[in-house]
Formats: sequence, C-alpha cells, structure tokens
Amino acid sequence: MLDPKRTVIELKELRALTGDENGAQRVAFTEIWARARGWLREKAEAIPGVETHRDEAGNFWATLRGESAKALLIGGHIDSVPNGGWLDGCLNTMAGIEILRRISAQHGGKPPVTVRVVDWADEEGARFGKSLFGSSACSGNLDMEEARGLADKAGIKLPDALREHGIDFERVKESGQELANAAAYLELHIEQGPVLLDLGLPLGTVLGTFGVERHAITFGGQAAHSGSTPMNRRRDAFLAAAKMSPEIYRIAEQSGNGVCTIGSCTTKPGIVTSVVEECRITLDQRHLDAAALATMLREARTASEQFAQEGNVEVAWERLWQIQPILFDDQLIAFADEAITETGAPPHRLPSGPLHDAAEVARAGVPTIMMFVQSLHGISHNKIEDTKEEHLELAVRAFDKLADKAIAWIGRKNDRELNS
Amino acid sequence: MLDPKRTVIELKELRALTGDENGAQRVAFTEIWARARGWLREKAEAIPGVETHRDEAGNFWATLRGESAKALLIGGHIDSVPNGGWLDGCLNTMAGIEILRRISAQHGGKPPVTVRVVDWADEEGARFGKSLFGSSACSGNLDMEEARGLADKAGIKLPDALREHGIDFERVKESGQELANAAAYLELHIEQGPVLLDLGLPLGTVLGTFGVERHAITFGGQAAHSGSTPMNRRRDAFLAAAKMSPEIYRIAEQSGNGVCTIGSCTTKPGIVTSVVEECRITLDQRHLDAAALATMLREARTASEQFAQEGNVEVAWERLWQIQPILFDDQLIAFADEAITETGAPPHRLPSGPLHDAAEVARAGVPTIMMFVQSLHGISHNKIEDTKEEHLELAVRAFDKLADKAIAWIGRKNDRELNS
Repeated sequence: MLDPKRTVIELKELRALTGDENGAQRVAFTEIWARARGWLREKAEAIPGVETHRDEAGNFWATLRGESAKALLIGGHIDSVPNGGWLDGCLNTMAGIEILRRISAQHGGKPPVTVRVVDWADEEGARFGKSLFGSSACSGNLDMEEARGLADKAGIKLPDALREHGIDFERVKESGQELANAAAYLELHIEQGPVLLDLGLPLGTVLGTFGVERHAITFGGQAAHSGSTPMNRRRDAFLAAAKMSPEIYRIAEQSGNGVCTIGSCTTKPGIVTSVVEECRITLDQRHLDAAALATMLREARTASEQFAQEGNVEVAWERLWQIQPILFDDQLIAFADEAITETGAPPHRLPSGPLHDAAEVARAGVPTIMMFVQSLHGISHNKIEDTKEEHLELAVRAFDKLADKAIAWIGRKNDRELNS
Repeated sequence: MLDPKRTVIELKELRALTGDENGAQRVAFTEIWARARGWLREKAEAIPGVETHRDEAGNFWATLRGESAKALLIGGHIDSVPNGGWLDGCLNTMAGIEILRRISAQHGGKPPVTVRVVDWADEEGARFGKSLFGSSACSGNLDMEEARGLADKAGIKLPDALREHGIDFERVKESGQELANAAAYLELHIEQGPVLLDLGLPLGTVLGTFGVERHAITFGGQAAHSGSTPMNRRRDAFLAAAKMSPEIYRIAEQSGNGVCTIGSCTTKPGIVTSVVEECRITLDQRHLDAAALATMLREARTASEQFAQEGNVEVAWERLWQIQPILFDDQLIAFADEAITETGAPPHRLPSGPLHDAAEVARAGVPTIMMFVQSLHGISHNKIEDTKEEHLELAVRAFDKLADKAIAWIGRKNDRELNS
C-alpha cells in the first residue's frame, strides 16, 4: 500500500544526511552526493524484486522487472545546487521509490510491465556549469567536445571528476541503451516558480518545456571622460543596453506566455569617470511555442539595432544556447489531469520554464510527462524552497495514480504490438 | 627667447623615454615615473638661477627666485594613467620649463617676482584610485585616514609605496608651506573633451572646474528563475537601474550645461538564468553651478525612487565623493582671454569637466586660472590623444603671455601692499 507520509519522512532523512543550515549540499560528483546515492541504493535494494545498477554516464537505475520488458521510467535527480532546496529533484526520486514499493507489493515482485526509477547524474550542472549531464548523455544529445573541456572552479576537468566516481567519460553515451525498452517517462518536480501558488492549486500537469533562446548582446560605443564629454557627443554603450530592459518586458507581454530575462550586465571600462565603451548583457527568452519564440527573438534583435542606431553605437549578438520547445505526450497529459482530479485537486496545465531531465528523455522519443507540485514561496535553488506536507503527500498520491495509468497504457500498447 | 618648438621636441623626447606602443606609462610612484622625474629635474637645473627640490608630498618644485618672494606658480603633472596620452599633464610641465627659461634669460636669472614650476605627484590616481594626491596634500584637503588605507591591485598600501620613493606619508601635509607666498597659479592642459574641437578653436580660457556629485545607487530586488517566473511577478533590479540611463540624459539636458554619467553597472547573481537581485550603478554628475548641480542630484534621486516603486524593488544611495564647483579668478580669466587674443586666436571661455590640480590650489585660496588647448579627437586617457603641433606651439606662446601678465599683476599687487 502506498504510504506518502513515508516519502516525506525519507525526504527529511535525506535532508538531515546531506544538508546543512544553508540548504541541500548534494552537488553532483562530490562526496555528499555519493553519500546520498548510497543511501538511495539501500532504499531501492530493500524492495523485493528490485535490482540496481549504474550506467556508463553515472545514472543510477532501480529496476523492477515485469512480465514485459517494456518499461515505465520514473526519473528524478538527487543532486542539488550548493545551498539548494530540500525537494528539488529528490522529491521525484523518493516518490518513485515509494511507487516501486507499492507496485512490487501489489504484483508480488512481478508487475505486468517493467518499472524503473532512474536517478540522473548531475541534472543541475552546478559544479561544471552544464546541466542535464546524465540525461543528455543517455538521450545522445550531450556535446562531447564541449563537455570534455568543462572544468570546475578549482580547474578540475569533468572527465577527471567523473573518473574519481568510476565513470569513463568517453563511454558515457553508451548509457543510451537504457532507453531501449522505455515506453513512458514520468517526472514529478516542485514547481520552480509561483504559478500554482498564485492560483492556489496544489498540483499541475506540465505541457512541455519552454524553448529557449539565450544570447549575449554586446553594445560597443566609445569611452570618454565623464566630465568633459558633452551629452550629445557621447556614444554610450550602457544607454543602448539599458533601453533593452523595458523593451523585453513589452516583447514578453505581446508574446502571450513567453518570458524574457536580462540576467547580467557588465560594463567596460566600468569606472565612475568614463562613459561606458562596451556593455554586454545576456538575454534569455523562453516560450512553449516555437514560432512565438522566434518572434520574440526577432523583435529583441530589431530593438537592439534601433537603440544602437539612436545612440551611435554598434551591437553584436552571440548565441550562447538554444533549445526548441519540447511538448509532452498528449495521452500522458490527459492521464496526469485525470490522476490529479482523482486525488480531489483541480487539474491545471502549465508550461515549464526551466528545463528538466524529462526534456532530454522526450527528445530521445520516449512519451514523456511531468507533474508539478506547488512551491510555497515560488522560489527554487534556495534553502527556503518548501512545499506544504499535505501537498507533498497529495503529489505522491497523484503521481502514483499517473504511474498506474501509464502502466496500463503501456500494457495495452504492448498487447496491440504483439497481436499485430 | 621663448622657443615653443623646443617644448614639442621635449615632449617627444619624454614620450620616447617613458611611453610604448600603448601610450604613456608614467604611472605615479613607479620606476618609469621616477625616470621621467629625473629627466625633468635635469632640464630644470640647466636653467640659470633655478633651484629644485621635492616637498614632503613628493611634489617637484623648480624655483627661480625673484626680487620679491611673492610667487607665480605654473603647475602640471608628469604622471599619466597606464596607456595614457602623451600630452595630458606634461604639456604644462614642459611649457612651464620653457617659460622659466625665457624669464631667466630675460631677467638675468632674477625676475621681479619669484616664478616656480611645480610637478604635482600623482594627479591621476591611476595606481591607488585617488586622484590629486600631491596637490590635495599641499592644499590641506587630503583625507589622511582614507589615503592611509588605499592599496593598489597587488595589495601594496599607499604609505608603503610612498616610502619606496622616500616620502613619509604622515608628513605629506607639511608640503602646504610651499603655498605660503603663492600669488597666482597657472595651468595649461590639453582639453579632455571635444568642445574646442567642435568649435574649431585652438585655445580656451577655463572658467572653473565642475562641481561633482558621485554616488553608487544600488537597486535590490529578488533573484528568480528566468524560465519559471512570470513577468508580472518579477522584482527586477536591472529594470529599475536601466530606466535611470535615459533619465540622466533628460536631467542633464534640463540642467543647461551639466553632465551625468552612469559609468558602471554590476549585477548579482549576474547569471543568464536568473532575474537580477541586485544592480549597482555609479552616477557621476557635474555642473559649474552649485544650485544646478543640487537640482540634478535631487532629480536623479527622485527618479530612482519612482523606478524602484514601479518595479517593487528597493533603492539605496551611497555618496562616493563630492566637490563643490570651483570658480577661477576673474582677473586671471580676463588675462587669459587677452593672452589668447594676442596670439591671434579667438578667445573662448568654457568650464572644465574633469578636475585638475588647479582646483586644489584654488581651494587653498590662491588666485588660479587654467588654459585649454584643443584635443584632436576630443579624447584623453588614451594613446590616441593628440594635438596639432601648431596648436601646441600657440598654446605655449599664449601661456607665456599669460605668465607675463600674471607676473606684472603680482608685482602691482605687491607694490600696493608694500606702499599701504
């Protein structure tokens, strides 16, 4: 029988084991992370019928083999950012363990289809600055050349850090075979924003992850003495960059549900007595609709060119990263709505602003869905991240119902395939 | 006889001795600066009747004693910023040496009043971040407590750097006695802006130096995930700061001849995936009129509070520095206009945006005037800083005429004092 209270107890146990007064400290490829992993493995191996192993990318798998090799995957990540929240990532892992227990008990260790919990390695990218490491290795999307060169603040290269944890960097993509029989992928996560909080809803069905366009925009003007240069003679790179800020709010509003963020601004020479010669801002734009995202990008570019012209400065764009919107599976979206409704909560659909491992699994062609639970402060990556315990329990319950629906669906699809 | 061409030749000699392909490298209290100083001392000591010494603040004095102890001072600075211009500061020093030569020759080593050339120590403040060191020590305005704590990028404290050059920091204000007999102070400088260039004028009479209000303005919002935080839920510190940029252009325009500059902008956490929690900008405001400067400051403060309120963020102001406008001597202003006119150039009066050692001397109560020569690109603190040679020669000629008028004026004032 499902025991959602046990999940909350285990999450607190994990917090005590791997957190401190500043929050969760389970940064991937560190000792504390390895400790969390060992604790998780013990929990998994105590479940009758469950086998565990680690794949070539360092992802941890707990597998309950079913009558069919077709597998339902439940994925999360036990790693955290430094001083992170206690629920981000591991809520899913522990809910997955509880669901494995329920299924193992209900089916005498042999469910109709295989059920697997995966703990992805280094979702956060906190140490090496590159998120979704384990899931992108598994999906095949990891850029090997880029990853090979990543280093942490101490200068330790990612491949060397991996080796310390028994992982051969050059073989990480072999983990892709884990998805061979994957028939559906479910992920439960604390919402990393305030949407459910504002609506007063405990749970939400996630439609997909935003497409992202991420650029650095550099305006180039002319350094000039702050006291001796008349205002109308200035080529002020900061002025042009500053005009972008209200503009991206306008662009986001026009886009419907898109968001735009200028997250950093640097100035050169950056001294109090000089007009800014060079100003670099980063722009992060996200939308669930690819065409709307393209429009937001085009409008921002046009605006930057206009502001540059007005101020007699140059402007250059450099793409830092992009990803297309990833839409989750329609059938699984419907199941998630049903599962939420069956717990007595109102269903609600929303996009995910942040990326998640689910995006990588979806890109690999596995039907995928996420469910969000309300975040009390609408805040994540922070020690104050929290969710009401009743909402955590409700989430485990709804997620378990979603798992059952997915298992039945996989079984039906499997039967059709066998009979065709 | 005055030989302005010799000044140009000597300036080139100095450039060859202390510059490189990136510009002038005469940063105060460094070896190259000491080399420039040694070269200057040789030039001065070769003039009949001239004695040299260094005061307690490290200022270099070349003194031609006259029949009266009342002294005309001609001041400049041989130090430069790193990669600086070849004329900034040293044009005056070398013009002063040439004028000393002319006066010594004309009066057989004994002019009617004493004439002194001073090379102030560390006008630029390039190494320790504090300009006008030598002149403010001499004027008595140096903040000893602040200066005692200054350190360069390598962590070397100002008092230790001074000791290496034979200067006892605790005694620097004793240099003030040098001003005991000062009756007038003249300074010739390359304009550090484009005003004379735009007007097509070689020379200008400086009315005074701008008053300056210099503040750091910090906006405090809330870090939030760039993908998951709806636009209308953001408390974006950068948005409020960015709105200040167009606003200061409006404020400066309304002020008449004031200037306002946002020279630097820093953002925290300053990452592409987060709304900016804290944004700090520096604001430098300058005006020749104290009331107009106060108005500019008040308007900027009001605007910042309005933008903070609009964006639901906090704002805090910290004064970094201020100085009142310093108006130069009316009689010397008239003499400078006459001197320029007598060289055949049209007179023109303008304020100085940047501060100069002249401001410190004026604050000490010495009647003071500056003359500007056109800067070819309107640019300073840069290796491309330049002035046409014919304008350099014209400047030396006009400055020499100004010195003669000042000497006569000092003589007349001295006679009146003796006869009263």
